[in-house]
Amino acid sequence: MSHSKGRLFVISGPSGTGKGTICREILKDIRNEFSVSMTTREPREGEEHGREYFFVSHEEFIENINRNNFLEYATVFDNYYGTPKDIVLKKLEKGRNVILDIDVQGGLQVKEAMPEAVLIFLLPPSLAALRSRLENRGTETPEKIEKRLNKALDEIKFIGEYDYMVVNDVREDAVSDVRSIMTAEALRVPEKVLPIIRRYEQEQKGE
Amino acid sequence: MSHSKGRLFVISGPSGTGKGTICREILKDIRNEFSVSMTTREPREGEEHGREYFFVSHEEFIENINRNNFLEYATVFDNYYGTPKDIVLKKLEKGRNVILDIDVQGGLQVKEAMPEAVLIFLLPPSLAALRSRLENRGTETPEKIEKRLNKALDEIKFIGEYDYMVVNDVREDAVSDVRSIMTAEALRVPEKVLPIIRRYEQEQKGE
Repeated sequence: MSHSKGRLFVISGPSGTGKGTICREILKDIRNEFSVSMTTREPREGEEHGREYFFVSHEEFIENINRNNFLEYATVFDNYYGTPKDIVLKKLEKGRNVILDIDVQGGLQVKEAMPEAVLIFLLPPSLAALRSRLENRGTETPEKIEKRLNKALDEIKFIGEYDYMVVNDVREDAVSDVRSIMTAEALRVPEKVLPIIRRYEQEQKGE
Repeated sequence: MSHSKGRLFVISGPSGTGKGTICREILKDIRNEFSVSMTTREPREGEEHGREYFFVSHEEFIENINRNNFLEYATVFDNYYGTPKDIVLKKLEKGRNVILDIDVQGGLQVKEAMPEAVLIFLLPPSLAALRSRLENRGTETPEKIEKRLNKALDEIKFIGEYDYMVVNDVREDAVSDVRSIMTAEALRVPEKVLPIIRRYEQEQKGE
């Protein structure tokens, strides 16, 4: 088929849901790649421009905001972080799927900037399961865990804005679910079907 | 998750595309079942009421038309054939996916009667491939094959009304594509998300 353009997938989900692991599995498929964010923060030891981030000046970031070149952006501790639209579009044109691992607020911004983006919400099997995952990390105080659970709940309240929901109970199943979503989305009948019809038509006419 | 209702899938595609074989594979999954049509034609040797068809009188069929109980219906050689809505809905309620193997005209009727139905169009890799499949059957005259190819083209012109398109080149791939579509559709965020949010919420409140 001719519509070999890639698609943009947003994967969101509360911290501790296992989003990172699932994204890594999905990225093993060479058709899929992460989006590289733009940031105003300083590069750290070993970070490379264009790999971890596009490191730009404050001015350049603002310039990108002004010409509407962010699918989403946010500030964290005085630094800007954003997803540059032009770079994502170039990848999609090349037939790559672009994966955006961002929070719900970012996901909603992306959907507004690009309604054809596919939003996947990763859910924990239960808050109890999420709690024990966070506890097992052993790195956080009970207060911090409580905060995270409340934040998880706040995020889940936006699930209605998402297209798909995947419960990460057994990891392999969740990965396979995300893969099925990506496959199905590639099989959608495109808005413009004339090229498809023409292809069969011309063949029948013996062209 | 609580939304365990099944979904209605329509699979259409030109004669010779391999629809029957693919449907049989899909039906190996116990969650999926065929819809049984209602007809006014006489049962043949070995056919069972409720298995091959629901065999009904002309009056009963008309009564079903009048109370709007068909997702689609058509007449073939003076006999009526139709898909009874009430029976399909009962299966969906039980969490079964219902598969409808019908032509494009029927598919469009179903979409109108039930917009949430998922329409899958099965395409041949090319008309040349379709031609050789029909020729290999060895049962049809060149004129009949030409007619079928023209009919195939007429059907393909409606592809824009369908949700998904699957090219049946390698059969295993086509089956896997249809399975991915079915999996993805089951993962869609439902229209009503409050029960999902409530479930997590109540848990956090310790209920």
